[in-house]
Amino acid sequence: MGSGLIGRSWAVLFSRGGYNVVLYDVQQEQLTGALTVIEGQLKSLAETGLLQGKDPAECLSRISTVTSLEQALDGAFFVQECVPEQLELKKKIYGTLDELAAPGTILCSSTSCIVPSKFTEELKNRECCIVAHPVNPPHYCPAVEIIPAPWTSDSVKARTIEVMKEIGMQPVVAKKECDGFILNRLQYAVLMEGWRLVEEGVCGPEDIDTVMTGGLGLRWSFIGPFETANLNAPNGMRDYAERYSAGIVRVSETFGAPRAMEGATLDTVAEYLDNKMPLDKLPEVRDWRDENLKKLAVFKQTMSEQPR
Amino acid sequence: MGSGLIGRSWAVLFSRGGYNVVLYDVQQEQLTGALTVIEGQLKSLAETGLLQGKDPAECLSRISTVTSLEQALDGAFFVQECVPEQLELKKKIYGTLDELAAPGTILCSSTSCIVPSKFTEELKNRECCIVAHPVNPPHYCPAVEIIPAPWTSDSVKARTIEVMKEIGMQPVVAKKECDGFILNRLQYAVLMEGWRLVEEGVCGPEDIDTVMTGGLGLRWSFIGPFETANLNAPNGMRDYAERYSAGIVRVSETFGAPRAMEGATLDTVAEYLDNKMPLDKLPEVRDWRDENLKKLAVFKQTMSEQPR
Repeated sequence: MGSGLIGRSWAVLFSRGGYNVVLYDVQQEQLTGALTVIEGQLKSLAETGLLQGKDPAECLSRISTVTSLEQALDGAFFVQECVPEQLELKKKIYGTLDELAAPGTILCSSTSCIVPSKFTEELKNRECCIVAHPVNPPHYCPAVEIIPAPWTSDSVKARTIEVMKEIGMQPVVAKKECDGFILNRLQYAVLMEGWRLVEEGVCGPEDIDTVMTGGLGLRWSFIGPFETANLNAPNGMRDYAERYSAGIVRVSETFGAPRAMEGATLDTVAEYLDNKMPLDKLPEVRDWRDENLKKLAVFKQTMSEQPR
Repeated sequence: MGSGLIGRSWAVLFSRGGYNVVLYDVQQEQLTGALTVIEGQLKSLAETGLLQGKDPAECLSRISTVTSLEQALDGAFFVQECVPEQLELKKKIYGTLDELAAPGTILCSSTSCIVPSKFTEELKNRECCIVAHPVNPPHYCPAVEIIPAPWTSDSVKARTIEVMKEIGMQPVVAKKECDGFILNRLQYAVLMEGWRLVEEGVCGPEDIDTVMTGGLGLRWSFIGPFETANLNAPNGMRDYAERYSAGIVRVSETFGAPRAMEGATLDTVAEYLDNKMPLDKLPEVRDWRDENLKKLAVFKQTMSEQPR
């Protein structure tokens, strides 16, 4: 539901996974344009070995387009909603989906920031509602956050996780709702501490980016924060906790309060970025980013298995 | 000074950069073993195109070993100290270096966690003391944190940055001392929020690792947190701040107090890690990590330049 950036990427992933996809949007011309983009993405994935051995034409043949929501829902067992991030819009859409979808249809939102209870509470079929928040671009970043509402049924949760795995994603499952979900909480923790370090004159914004791309982020592209800690002490995590917990708590206590992103610090950060990634070049830089994420996805497939 | 893991890696980097290196340690057998490891690392770097076109044998020929600190310091303009992270030991060593080194010799510590003012305040030549904290393993992770003491001279700071760039590192420069420096503040921000999410039952430790390796960490391996934000809003950082600052502050306000790494959460995290990376396999898993960091360093050299 929605044929923008994320909707198109989901169509690619579901079709790669062997599912028939009915892509819905309000205007036929948007859908026609979306199919062209999808065709290109499928070809590109096939060329780089990321289509899991599937034929791109066959995947494309599994995708149809409609401008009628009734038709889109006809026979659907799973709806992946990708409309803009506005609460009132989500509420309206889910009210409609609740009326039109067959009972038991899973209604799955791509929202990055609205907990599902906020737009599903009043629905008849609210136990069928859940969030699957992907990372952009989803066809190169496999992590997807699964956030159930308090009333989401266990079977809907289990089936959603199963579907995500089937289409090659790596589900990260929240046991309960949480503002910012999981990914953005970690992202904001870094961004906010980076912001404070700049605001307090410890370093410039370029230093925050360099320490990530030349250090922390290299490891985190294939081993996570806990795995990293486990390897950073001779005898693993318990040893790490014994050696470093007090220091980590001491440093964490100095983090200070969250800061609004404004004023002189915003000037400093924006000036650095405008210089490094000029505003009129942002579309090209995004293409460059996505191209590198694709190469990285290919590269990661060549990595050996971790010894056990 | 010191021929352990970090000292050996520095020897590789300085020799690759064209400098003569005198590797000092207390026992000759340690130094002999270190040279064998260094020879292997130089060869491996040459084979993978990471020796910047230099000849490994020529680099090796620039490295000599001594067990006499006086000899090590004879004619040295730059000392890279790599002794264990104990404050009293550092104080003792710097007292000795202060006596023995020629005036003007830069005394640079590899410490990851002790601010330089704590072990240099009383020295005659304290304006020559500074910290350059590398990321392990330094020959595959180019970021290095430069932390001056309040009394470090501008010329020592400038020369240290220059030397680090000459040997192929990417210096991240703190304008003042800061507990945890920069890298570990960002690392601890993630680790602490991940810990809290596990402790509060939002998700398991495996979810924290997956959301990093399948999402956030992929981007952060080549674009930093601010660059990522800049690309995540249609019109760059100012647009990002306008759209998301309030949400980021709201989420950040829910982070809560730092937690000691102990109790039931430590059991949960350690059990997950013991299962994924068994304790008796940690040395092999570290080799696997370093091998992948090497491949990643090679891979990053093939990335195209960011369009500007």
